Amino acid sequence: MKESFVSLTLDSASTLRAGAFGNATHLSCRECGATRELGPHYACSECFGPLEVAYDFGQVTREQIEAGPRNIWRYKALLPVPDDIETSPNLEPGFTRLLDACNLAAELGLTKLWVKDDSTNPTNSFKDRVVACALSAARELGSRVFACPSTGNLANAVAAAGARAGIPTVVFIPSNLETPKQVNSAVFTESLVAVDGTYDDVNKLASEIAGEDPGWAFVNVNVRPFYAEGSKTLGYEIAEQLGWRLPDQIVIPVASGSQLTKVHKAFQELIALGLVEDKPYKVFGAQADGCSPVASAFKAGVDAIRPVKPDTIAKSLAIGNPADGIYVLDIARQTGGGVEQVSDDEIRAAIVLLARNEGIFTETAGGTTVAVLKKLVETGQLDPDAETVIINTGHGLKTLDAVSGSVGPRATIAPTYDAFTAAGIA
Amino acid sequence: MKESFVSLTLDSASTLRAGAFGNATHLSCRECGATRELGPHYACSECFGPLEVAYDFGQVTREQIEAGPRNIWRYKALLPVPDDIETSPNLEPGFTRLLDACNLAAELGLTKLWVKDDSTNPTNSFKDRVVACALSAARELGSRVFACPSTGNLANAVAAAGARAGIPTVVFIPSNLETPKQVNSAVFTESLVAVDGTYDDVNKLASEIAGEDPGWAFVNVNVRPFYAEGSKTLGYEIAEQLGWRLPDQIVIPVASGSQLTKVHKAFQELIALGLVEDKPYKVFGAQADGCSPVASAFKAGVDAIRPVKPDTIAKSLAIGNPADGIYVLDIARQTGGGVEQVSDDEIRAAIVLLARNEGIFTETAGGTTVAVLKKLVETGQLDPDAETVIINTGHGLKTLDAVSGSVGPRATIAPTYDAFTAAGIA
Ligand SMILES: Cc1ncc(COP(=O)(O)O)c(C=O)c1O
Ligand SMILES: Cc1ncc(COP(=O)(O)O)c(C=O)c1O
Ligand SMILES: [Zn+2]
Ligand SMILES: [Zn+2]
Repeated sequence: MKESFVSLTLDSASTLRAGAFGNATHLSCRECGATRELGPHYACSECFGPLEVAYDFGQVTREQIEAGPRNIWRYKALLPVPDDIETSPNLEPGFTRLLDACNLAAELGLTKLWVKDDSTNPTNSFKDRVVACALSAARELGSRVFACPSTGNLANAVAAAGARAGIPTVVFIPSNLETPKQVNSAVFTESLVAVDGTYDDVNKLASEIAGEDPGWAFVNVNVRPFYAEGSKTLGYEIAEQLGWRLPDQIVIPVASGSQLTKVHKAFQELIALGLVEDKPYKVFGAQADGCSPVASAFKAGVDAIRPVKPDTIAKSLAIGNPADGIYVLDIARQTGGGVEQVSDDEIRAAIVLLARNEGIFTETAGGTTVAVLKKLVETGQLDPDAETVIINTGHGLKTLDAVSGSVGPRATIAPTYDAFTAAGIA
Repeated sequence: MKESFVSLTLDSASTLRAGAFGNATHLSCRECGATRELGPHYACSECFGPLEVAYDFGQVTREQIEAGPRNIWRYKALLPVPDDIETSPNLEPGFTRLLDACNLAAELGLTKLWVKDDSTNPTNSFKDRVVACALSAARELGSRVFACPSTGNLANAVAAAGARAGIPTVVFIPSNLETPKQVNSAVFTESLVAVDGTYDDVNKLASEIAGEDPGWAFVNVNVRPFYAEGSKTLGYEIAEQLGWRLPDQIVIPVASGSQLTKVHKAFQELIALGLVEDKPYKVFGAQADGCSPVASAFKAGVDAIRPVKPDTIAKSLAIGNPADGIYVLDIARQTGGGVEQVSDDEIRAAIVLLARNEGIFTETAGGTTVAVLKKLVETGQLDPDAETVIINTGHGLKTLDAVSGSVGPRATIAPTYDAFTAAGIA
């Protein structure tokens, strides 16, 4: 497989193969609407606004999608990937469980609650979705190195996907990252680089490297427009798994804010394509007290996001200067949703709450989401009788320390029936 | 949900609801063929041989299966579960990826290799399959407590499934178990019990408790016949995902030997039902040097298994006195396969080999399987040109220590471009 990557970089779209990006037609600036050809571009040359992929979908039917593979490629017509995407080695992420969370619903006083469980993706977070799309772009652009700055999960996904695709990877993480997330990258790549700094420092370094050497595809920097589209598949799957309809309310964790904006984009596309009925829905964002720039701006009623220096156990959400924060604000306000924040203790308790009720072990990001759900219900921001979906974006085995102090063996006994009865269990 | 469990125990099958066990008709002794009614029985009253579920399947078609849900319940007609099984809260395991392992195949000199990847199950091991079937039996039998002795993964699966089903759980583990596997149980249950002893000691204690109190459903002891049938779904899925055909060779890790015997049973059932073409296939078992009672017997050419005291990093496979070991021997011999063993160092290296080639992070059991695959090729026991499947039964995040000493950050740098270039990375 190692031979399939061309070791030079394309500078213009003219050398791309036909259909390299499927139904995508161009890049478009989210701020001023200026357009640009498909390529390794992420900032508008007019106004420096973020570029987004634009498409000409033509007709896409439910039947066409349902006949596809049981992974994100069933939605390939809606993604910037070639039609033969399944034939290139990739991790085949997606089509994870949508679980009817009847116990947690009862516990919180909700009528209907679903958990979209992305902890069962190949590297146990939703990042496998975005990375699969970024990998396709890197392939088509002939990138030499597949890389990322990461709060942990992205590094896992990039290192694993690169290993399978046979492209060299370099992944950059803050040096204070949880051990499981470090090992879970290092097992896949020789080049895990720890950086003494915050995620925002690591991100800045990545932008500098990308600026110096165009052979590097930093998934969430210079191929970010393609990468970000991968999160749309969460929205598509939720709608399809609900029987081709949209929920009334959805709660999504927010770091850079990319995932939340793309789930909303997915819902809008499904409506525009006539694949689901048009209906109102509310989008809620979840942050941790120790890194809540978007929640703060939402509550203050302002449009600008003031960067913060993160300090929370929810390290995967610890982005102090969120690239898509202002779009999260827009969407929360437009849809009548909101952005809430919770404390580290609430996050820890919510991890155990979800585990004990639904048998799902989530990481701190999921703990944040469940704790915010609880708070939204308690404060009356969320309608308990409207159908609600929450996204579990990652796995508890990666943030073991968050709960290892509060749960453990109830007793340690000798291997005898007498010792068992003496311990007074059940 | 907590109300759905009847808090008394049924002593005879006469009080079971109709269809409680689907197409299953009775229990049958593997040794002497004596039969018994369906119920919480696991040993033959004539000869103490293990009881197995017997069925009258009638007709089962591919179309019927393909129209089912994307989890193990698509095969419910072939399992001892009621027809309405999907409506009872469960973890919805199964239908995991079958990955075309083209890189590892090339690395080992194989023409075609697939990895059945059960690390993406709800609690990240194949145990979610067997536990889902045991849970159904416990429900139908009106058990009061859902329990197990475990080498780790089973405890995770039982604790999680019980939480979701709303039945009290008690899980017993050897006290020297890896921390991630302990936390990954304790997060789901208040009653994780650590036992100072080997797995075999823990198992003996469980049998004693089951003998004293019939209200306890020990998934792998007194409801073992129902539990074990869950592993058949691995065989069904492999065949369906290959396009309704059987592979030529399959390599499966062996602890108690249950999984291996059930995958073989599944293949035989598919042939008998006309769902796949009849063809020869070879079954290979994988063990660690530090616990290789079945591999030793296979190589010595004897029929009896001599119990051992385990000492290996593959703790999930550390069963020194394997209940189904003799049936593994039978199947390996009958099919022309074998049982091999590898050292802890080979296991560690194989974990990294799989990760770097396919982007899959397996636990020590999967490392054992990959290392045995390698050894079987190198020693000429496995035909490199015949289509091969290996089962990855668990997740590397649960046995982090196996590799955390050998992989890690390549460099730790300051967050500057100069520091990056000075580090000489790529
Ligand atoms: C587990 C998890 N959930 C949620 C997020 C938030 O993603 P986004 O940056 O798209 O807001 C991340 C980002 O790293 C994450 O790792
Ligand atoms: C990860 C893993 N693989 C394989 C096995 C072997 O299963 P069996 O006891 O069915 O042989 C186990 C058993 O605990 C396990 O945890
Ligand atoms: Zn612009
Ligand atoms: Zn008998």
